[in-house]
Amino acid sequence: MESKNLENILESYFDRLWPLTRSLTGNANRETLSILSEIIPLNVHEVPSGTICYDWEIPSEWNPKEAWIKDENGNILVDFKKNNLHLLGYSTSYNGKLSFEELESHLYSLPEKPELIPYVTSYYSKRWGFCISHHQLKELKEHKGPFNVNIDAEHNIDGSLTYGDLLLEGTSSEEILFSTYICHPSMANDQISGMLVAAFLYQELSKIKDRHYSYRFIFVPETIGAIAYLKENGSILKERTRAGYIITCLGDKGKFSYKNTKQKDSLTNKVTLQVLKDNNIEFQEFPFVPLGSDERQYASPGFNLPVGSLMRTMYWHFEEYHTSADNKSFISFKHLRESIELYMKVIKTFEGNKKFINKFPYGEVQLGKRGLYPTLGRGNDKTQMVDAYIWILNYSDGKNDLLQIAELSNIPMNILIEASNILEKEGLINKIENF
Amino acid sequence: MESKNLENILESYFDRLWPLTRSLTGNANRETLSILSEIIPLNVHEVPSGTICYDWEIPSEWNPKEAWIKDENGNILVDFKKNNLHLLGYSTSYNGKLSFEELESHLYSLPEKPELIPYVTSYYSKRWGFCISHHQLKELKEHKGPFNVNIDAEHNIDGSLTYGDLLLEGTSSEEILFSTYICHPSMANDQISGMLVAAFLYQELSKIKDRHYSYRFIFVPETIGAIAYLKENGSILKERTRAGYIITCLGDKGKFSYKNTKQKDSLTNKVTLQVLKDNNIEFQEFPFVPLGSDERQYASPGFNLPVGSLMRTMYWHFEEYHTSADNKSFISFKHLRESIELYMKVIKTFEGNKKFINKFPYGEVQLGKRGLYPTLGRGNDKTQMVDAYIWILNYSDGKNDLLQIAELSNIPMNILIEASNILEKEGLINKIENF
Amino acid sequence: MESKNLENILESYFDRLWPLTRSLTGNANRETLSILSEIIPLNVHEVPSGTICYDWEIPSEWNPKEAWIKDENGNILVDFKKNNLHLLGYSTSYNGKLSFEELESHLYSLPEKPELIPYVTSYYSKRWGFCISHHQLKELKEHKGPFNVNIDAEHNIDGSLTYGDLLLEGTSSEEILFSTYICHPSMANDQISGMLVAAFLYQELSKIKDRHYSYRFIFVPETIGAIAYLKENGSILKERTRAGYIITCLGDKGKFSYKNTKQKDSLTNKVTLQVLKDNNIEFQEFPFVPLGSDERQYASPGFNLPVGSLMRTMYWHFEEYHTSADNKSFISFKHLRESIELYMKVIKTFEGNKKFINKFPYGEVQLGKRGLYPTLGRGNDKTQMVDAYIWILNYSDGKNDLLQIAELSNIPMNILIEASNILEKEGLINKIENF
Repeated sequence: MESKNLENILESYFDRLWPLTRSLTGNANRETLSILSEIIPLNVHEVPSGTICYDWEIPSEWNPKEAWIKDENGNILVDFKKNNLHLLGYSTSYNGKLSFEELESHLYSLPEKPELIPYVTSYYSKRWGFCISHHQLKELKEHKGPFNVNIDAEHNIDGSLTYGDLLLEGTSSEEILFSTYICHPSMANDQISGMLVAAFLYQELSKIKDRHYSYRFIFVPETIGAIAYLKENGSILKERTRAGYIITCLGDKGKFSYKNTKQKDSLTNKVTLQVLKDNNIEFQEFPFVPLGSDERQYASPGFNLPVGSLMRTMYWHFEEYHTSADNKSFISFKHLRESIELYMKVIKTFEGNKKFINKFPYGEVQLGKRGLYPTLGRGNDKTQMVDAYIWILNYSDGKNDLLQIAELSNIPMNILIEASNILEKEGLINKIENF
Repeated sequence: MESKNLENILESYFDRLWPLTRSLTGNANRETLSILSEIIPLNVHEVPSGTICYDWEIPSEWNPKEAWIKDENGNILVDFKKNNLHLLGYSTSYNGKLSFEELESHLYSLPEKPELIPYVTSYYSKRWGFCISHHQLKELKEHKGPFNVNIDAEHNIDGSLTYGDLLLEGTSSEEILFSTYICHPSMANDQISGMLVAAFLYQELSKIKDRHYSYRFIFVPETIGAIAYLKENGSILKERTRAGYIITCLGDKGKFSYKNTKQKDSLTNKVTLQVLKDNNIEFQEFPFVPLGSDERQYASPGFNLPVGSLMRTMYWHFEEYHTSADNKSFISFKHLRESIELYMKVIKTFEGNKKFINKFPYGEVQLGKRGLYPTLGRGNDKTQMVDAYIWILNYSDGKNDLLQIAELSNIPMNILIEASNILEKEGLINKIENF
Repeated sequence: MESKNLENILESYFDRLWPLTRSLTGNANRETLSILSEIIPLNVHEVPSGTICYDWEIPSEWNPKEAWIKDENGNILVDFKKNNLHLLGYSTSYNGKLSFEELESHLYSLPEKPELIPYVTSYYSKRWGFCISHHQLKELKEHKGPFNVNIDAEHNIDGSLTYGDLLLEGTSSEEILFSTYICHPSMANDQISGMLVAAFLYQELSKIKDRHYSYRFIFVPETIGAIAYLKENGSILKERTRAGYIITCLGDKGKFSYKNTKQKDSLTNKVTLQVLKDNNIEFQEFPFVPLGSDERQYASPGFNLPVGSLMRTMYWHFEEYHTSADNKSFISFKHLRESIELYMKVIKTFEGNKKFINKFPYGEVQLGKRGLYPTLGRGNDKTQMVDAYIWILNYSDGKNDLLQIAELSNIPMNILIEASNILEKEGLINKIENF
């Protein structure tokens, strides 16, 4: 894949996904999944409103049509068609004439960031409202009103929640999970970046032949969607998931971050940290906390799935988070492409990590006679590949996988994987099938 | 309790306890326990002299009456009625006329702290002697003598060793042990502070209703008293003790110290260190060493009780240690009161620490519908109490108690305890009874 | 032993061992073992060429007789009789007249260290060649030739590989292994220092009576010799070896180094690191890597013996390594003697480390009545020996050996060993036989 080309493709998809008013439910979510299906052939599922999912219930389907505030002369002051953040998420319908005093408690703004429109929702408590910049709030206050207010937003109790998933099967039923969320309207980094990385990761991954792991891609509205997914698929996930990631916040220009899984010694953590080390990537490390994104659900005590999150700047840690400033200018398609590439390195490390048994465990194997060792003894001038042979042979006693050998030897995984392939071809080591 | 009032009460008890010539045995110890019984209703026990306690034997009972040095003119030069440190602890009786040269080997002083009288004992080797300031020793040397010396100190082999104890029962037979020593004469920090903290801790503790733990208070002469106590109660202690403390050195103005228990991962250590952290208390941490106070006995290999010591400046670490400078002016009753309050926080942490099972372990509990979560989604603006709910629910899988959750989450124990009470009332978690 | 005297003896042996052209096989190795047998009564073994040892085969026996380059006038330009490094190790025979261009590919030099002759071998690939300084290589290039070249070096397929060993038996069959290599020609630090330390260590060790451990000394050519040794003795070693060391690089003036064993918590590591700490020896610590010397073989996965290496400057880490500069002037016999003394401290620590059971585990033992504790109580003024008694008694519960007590107490092992001997004589502790 040519880099520039991929960046252009990413941008074109971004531009199509940007304007849709995604939420927990609704047609914008269906359209989003339909667009993404051009990249990844998702299975799209509908969960009817009212369905009980553990402690939760699927809410009514929400499809906002119009939302504006006009002055007495009919001049439009606020219109969610201009910026879909203007409408409070899951707002109820409303129509009426109000003074500023009456309107004020329905307005949400950020006094400390007066230029920006906040992203606010009220999913499970019935409210109507508008999100506007604090500058605009002051203008409305000066204006005093009265204002004509109109919100036409359907809440359909016969609707459904929509999600997509896909299982890319490998030779093993062991799964690696990638989950991203689809419930934010126009948010570039904290939403669209994740959907695009997940979708294109599938595309890259599907080119790899002889995959060991099966890969599960999940596109759900945050929280309720993940809970609905677990309700339908949780027991399979619990049985098969060896590692997993929440894919989000991957387009900004900041350095990488890694939020660890709940289990400190998980394969997810080991592989991710090794890839970051091997590639000399400066990053910020975060411990697991049961707050954040859908790792909250996957790592709930009934499932305890080892789900981490490899991001660029983590949600909460960038100023633009959940405001109108998290837009196209905040991200770059070069950074988005590099995020996909880094996740591919993670996947290659999962695929290449194996555990072997040295078939000649007594004394050293004579590598020289197999052409794998310099025939001239000149002190200590071996290549890293020769070191890799020796480390693998010495530590392949059934206890250590390549990741553990990488940690001990400081030899990068890609060298160890290549060396193990050669040693296996030479008949010197045997792969342990299930470890 | 009003702070100032408690400080006054502490001072009045201090003034009554100060002049008594406590030792391993004797009437002063009985009087000490009698005074303390006004605060804590101790059971007072007598162990006859000659009783064998493991490798030890209860010594004869010692009751000194008079001890002085006079010059030829009958002028009193040294008198233990002025300062009971003047008489060597457990000194034998003596009466005679001596030159300075003859007297010198019976005099104990501190050349490096020439103003101070040292506290010296000779419990198990028969000696007579006087402890005086090095300045006075020089004066006696210049005077040359002869000196009239008189020590009238009864050693009664038909006497006994006196100790006090009390078991404040909780709903559980699991015990927390508080042990303090009563064998020092006029020593303010390294003795009386400990007795007063232990006694008033009982008073505070007895006000708490529905205590889970039983609390055992032990007032014994150091070493031989603790050994005698273990001889009589050791097997019960071994079975029931979950945590314990030596109560000493709690009145000085220095910062707190914590000497760990022999077991590195004891509940004693976890609770104490958590309380110090939660309250932002700067302190000095010491590892366990089998030297020091009666933790030597409780942690002897036959018992191995998890006994630590939360002190202010640790014995050995203040200049005034075991000298006449460890007096009323060295301590403050405000600091003594604060020490009692800190130990109460420790006790509340023991009582509040529990292990729970999340009754809804699959996905998150929907806190919002129970009024425990903000209904408006505005990014990351939850209270610490909401965080506490989420942490407890996520980690209550039968493995983690609140202390472990506190360590992982950096949420103080008092918040976690309050949150767990609310979650329990809401029917979301169940307490695990025996963990 | 008088220090100066030992240094002179070491020097005289060094001078005899220096000129011999040791290699994997050959008469120089036999002569080396014969000289060393004056110090340590080695059993000398021969393994016939062609013998299969695991993945390896004993090579033909090599006995070089002559090797020189002359100019057309018969002037000797290079002669291995002057410096046995001049001949490529295991060089085949050759006789002919060559131009510089023809000769060049058979010449080995160090451009970055132009004064020095490198030490190069070609054991398992048939080559002939000379090792010379880069200065001399330039001279030959200017000279252009033709050169008369002669190498007379027998490769006898009916020969054998020679090694020596000795088992110094103790009361236990548990063994401590010392292995050194004998295959380098004139190399002072990276060879002769090791042979001399190993031999004289035997001499010192044999003076100790009532040794607990059995000590195995192995003198083998590196790699193939160790593999041959394991082929013949590996199962015994696997069963009996409790600790082991590769003895090498012990004569230079650098500070000590310690390369850990493959097992992080091995007795070898604990004892060595404790001795270095107790003696306040500054040293550099290296992790185990399966590269280096014969620990590669002993720690191969079929054996996994806990073999470390206590050296002065580690091979690879001194500039003179594998060059003509690793000669007598690079080492000192004072440093060599001190290396022997340090290894003797290691041995005394192995011998003295024991595990005990306190026979009086309930409360403290009354040390005072046994004369082991000061009878005068003066606060905290006990000797380190008294502390040692108390630590040993408190921790001798069947779980801790003296090494663990040393680590916890910061009391040096020699004090703990002495204290344990006294406590054992006093009947206070019992040694646990097999731990």
